[in-house]
Amino acid sequence: MKQDKIPVPAPEECILEGRNAVQEAIRSGRTVDKVFIAAGDTDSNLARLATLAKQAGAVVTPVDRRRLDQMSLTHAHQGIIAQVAAHTYATLEDMLALAASRNEPPLIVVCDELSDPHNLGAILRSAECAGAHGVVIPKRRSVGLSPVVAKASAGAVEYIPVARVTNLTAALKELQSKGLWVYGTAADGETQLYSADLQGPSVIVIGNEGAGMSRLVRQTCDVLVRVPMKGRVSSLNASATAAILLYEALRQRQGASGG
Amino acid sequence: MKQDKIPVPAPEECILEGRNAVQEAIRSGRTVDKVFIAAGDTDSNLARLATLAKQAGAVVTPVDRRRLDQMSLTHAHQGIIAQVAAHTYATLEDMLALAASRNEPPLIVVCDELSDPHNLGAILRSAECAGAHGVVIPKRRSVGLSPVVAKASAGAVEYIPVARVTNLTAALKELQSKGLWVYGTAADGETQLYSADLQGPSVIVIGNEGAGMSRLVRQTCDVLVRVPMKGRVSSLNASATAAILLYEALRQRQGASGG
Repeated sequence: MKQDKIPVPAPEECILEGRNAVQEAIRSGRTVDKVFIAAGDTDSNLARLATLAKQAGAVVTPVDRRRLDQMSLTHAHQGIIAQVAAHTYATLEDMLALAASRNEPPLIVVCDELSDPHNLGAILRSAECAGAHGVVIPKRRSVGLSPVVAKASAGAVEYIPVARVTNLTAALKELQSKGLWVYGTAADGETQLYSADLQGPSVIVIGNEGAGMSRLVRQTCDVLVRVPMKGRVSSLNASATAAILLYEALRQRQGASGG
Repeated sequence: MKQDKIPVPAPEECILEGRNAVQEAIRSGRTVDKVFIAAGDTDSNLARLATLAKQAGAVVTPVDRRRLDQMSLTHAHQGIIAQVAAHTYATLEDMLALAASRNEPPLIVVCDELSDPHNLGAILRSAECAGAHGVVIPKRRSVGLSPVVAKASAGAVEYIPVARVTNLTAALKELQSKGLWVYGTAADGETQLYSADLQGPSVIVIGNEGAGMSRLVRQTCDVLVRVPMKGRVSSLNASATAAILLYEALRQRQGASGG
């Protein structure tokens, strides 16, 4: 068993770590080039995943667990690290086309300069689970689709369309011109969450963890939504806010269709 | 300026890192013994926090930023680390008494063996924001109130009562005997989230990130709730699930009171 092979460095976006992340990449049909797996591990789930990877055409190499630790960027590789094709980004048009193909009013999440990869990953996961049609992130001043994001998304990054845009305000205006309403969250928002109508074509904007939405993005919002705060802590985690808004949209939409 | 002072090691639960965590500890009246702050930093927020800590009776010591990095367990100390009195745990009775004092039906979150401190921290934060009356964690096989948890909670750990119990099933049965209904989440739950009645005295059980609820805890639940899943990823993040259920409870309760 070759345990000394030194993995070829790859760009961050081409590395996936953890069982869910690798499994979902294989399932979704993304090209998986190489899989490094903990050697001597008797874990049957890991063995099954290795078989799956081989069937998908990947070169599977057992490596020492300490070597995996060294390679790992997430520090939670769960015995498996994969090298995959670069992520294919979507466009806003792709998201609107997806909504149309499902015969649903568009539901898109826009992340304004998130800095915590766990938050972005959790938002991708919640967006996919709630049946949203895409997540938009800015090209600059934002975490990209790093291994930490991919892992935190539990594989959702393989399914939910993600667009990277140069100018978030321009993207919001483009979506507005297509008939979408832009809902931002703000502590001083004039509309209480449960009074906001999220049944129509909607964009949910999630602000930066510390500073909230940037000024221009905030000014572009059609509605500023206030999530009720009953405690002595002034704000929710960005990914909790996203989950609450996404599932409030889902609740309203299910009610509308009688589901 | 003394930059060489070596911090006295303290138990994990007595260390707080990050601006929010330290600020909320001071605000809540928790005893703050020592504060280590990045030396030479011109940041006005940090200076304000140092003044606040001094006023609260803490010994504030400027240390080199690299020394803070070494002390840090969260790897995101934001220029400030505090040493505080050990956390005071609450009892189930405390939580019920808090609900009674607010004239609200109890709303309690029970975390079944969570392993990710970010999840526990985010759940504490969401529980406090949604106006819940407490969070219950098991003594064994669960993360405790570590600095990572405290930081992820953005200070909520100082406000929301937290109980540690030896036997989670026994705790659930005790709460049931006091008239609370226990709602667990499960992919195969028979009740859809938006059909579940969370207006009465309620316990929300959040399962482990990988395995969900343990068998005995699951059997103790009165209702198994299914969060709708519209995507190709099979489950939400544990803290997203908690946020969605907590805010669905808040929505139903606000509706009931006409708020």
